[in-house]
Amino acid sequence: MKLLRYGPPGAEKPGLLDGEGGLRDLSAEVADIAGEALTPAGIARLRALDPRALPRVEGNPRLGPCVTGVGKFMAIGLNYADHAAEAGMAPPAEPVLFSKYPSAMCGPNDEVIIPRGSVKTDWEVELGVVIGRPGRHIPESDALAHVAGYCVVNDVSERSLQLEGTGQWVKGKSCDTFAPTGPWLVTADEVPDPQNLRLWLEVDGHRYQDGSTATMIFGVARLISYLSGLFTLHPGDIISTGTPPGVGMGVKPAPVYLRPGQVMRLGVEGLGEQRLRTVAEP
Amino acid sequence: MKLLRYGPPGAEKPGLLDGEGGLRDLSAEVADIAGEALTPAGIARLRALDPRALPRVEGNPRLGPCVTGVGKFMAIGLNYADHAAEAGMAPPAEPVLFSKYPSAMCGPNDEVIIPRGSVKTDWEVELGVVIGRPGRHIPESDALAHVAGYCVVNDVSERSLQLEGTGQWVKGKSCDTFAPTGPWLVTADEVPDPQNLRLWLEVDGHRYQDGSTATMIFGVARLISYLSGLFTLHPGDIISTGTPPGVGMGVKPAPVYLRPGQVMRLGVEGLGEQRLRTVAEP
Repeated sequence: MKLLRYGPPGAEKPGLLDGEGGLRDLSAEVADIAGEALTPAGIARLRALDPRALPRVEGNPRLGPCVTGVGKFMAIGLNYADHAAEAGMAPPAEPVLFSKYPSAMCGPNDEVIIPRGSVKTDWEVELGVVIGRPGRHIPESDALAHVAGYCVVNDVSERSLQLEGTGQWVKGKSCDTFAPTGPWLVTADEVPDPQNLRLWLEVDGHRYQDGSTATMIFGVARLISYLSGLFTLHPGDIISTGTPPGVGMGVKPAPVYLRPGQVMRLGVEGLGEQRLRTVAEP
Repeated sequence: MKLLRYGPPGAEKPGLLDGEGGLRDLSAEVADIAGEALTPAGIARLRALDPRALPRVEGNPRLGPCVTGVGKFMAIGLNYADHAAEAGMAPPAEPVLFSKYPSAMCGPNDEVIIPRGSVKTDWEVELGVVIGRPGRHIPESDALAHVAGYCVVNDVSERSLQLEGTGQWVKGKSCDTFAPTGPWLVTADEVPDPQNLRLWLEVDGHRYQDGSTATMIFGVARLISYLSGLFTLHPGDIISTGTPPGVGMGVKPAPVYLRPGQVMRLGVEGLGEQRLRTVAEP
């Protein structure tokens, strides 16, 4: 299934994509794509529905982030060996966890706001993993059974706030609209191997990132196991699993950052695409 | 007003403390102590109620964290000049922001779980600030008008995970039960000067922390203004404003850390007390 949320920001309704690519309304079936709906029982209940019996959504509404009620937005740094190299850092011995605040989440085709005064806003296409079954100390062998589904995440990053000031990366990772998420949450049964997905990103038609989840240092199962050793994972928690080479900060001979009026297109194989226009903060 | 949440973990109901210190049930008036209820209009609506007309809560129920639906748990590091000194770090030029995941929140008298294998679990009494009025780029002069209320936060910290591994502080700041919050959310009108509150913490009757918010490097208004320059603040967001000297890591001649079976007592002037027993993770 491809689960989604549609409608104006802050007032999205749950929906799904039917077999013909049409939008169907799930709001009579589930409160939102969040929490309980993401557990194995919740997903099974949705799967039992006949999509053709659900109300058709007319028109071409905005899509919101494909999941909400996110408790922990866990982002992993330097998780592709060649991206670590372009960032000038050694591959980490264990997963590098940082946090993005969920208030940064937006839809897959929304405007990305370049903060006032920023000259170092950068992109990062990533495979997002949404937790369905809660757990603590999850063995790696059982970890993928805790996944509700997968989605595209753009881990937009203001490098100056992330790296040059005092404090932690969260500052430059959590500006409003810095976590476009979706278009869809693709349930885990439709993603047989999360470690074999192409992912790519273009700015104004120039392809900067073109990688594969096959080159992750710590794969999805290892990340779930590791993170659940730190704290309990809950339904709706997101792991954004790191970015392959090709971020703006790493471009030679000089970094390239986003300017207002550009268009980012990005995707992960089987999980859909984002198309995001950059705008200056008013 | 003193707003609170009572009942079993995950099933708390909203309530308030009446003039005689008794618990009153607010669940017919408001869905929870969260979001909309924390806005100026929400607080005004609650203030208009006659506490004596609300149902009395019998017995002595557990208190949960005094606020829920927390989007951003913003914690400030090294925000007391003498605590920065004991940590061996220079006072920061601007606020040091780090993140605690809200899944670490628990009630003010719950058990604090020392994670398996941890030998460096530490305490930090802090003044918590809960946002009521949303805002972005809030001027310092207007910042306190964005506060719904204040509460006690214990920023429990596993120093090994925080400081010795790869990645960011969030790892050692977000273990389950590492953010006891409450007992009450004291509305801002009852806290005329947040920069003049004593705060203290004892372990097994030994007083380790005994400070005053008067010695903060960045006061509450400055923090709100600064953080709202990074991203939009929303109702229910929490700022935990840093800890005064006396954490276990700073004890001379050798650090002192928590062991299972100890009792932490801590409080902030006018905001109530926490009493937390430590237990080993099973």
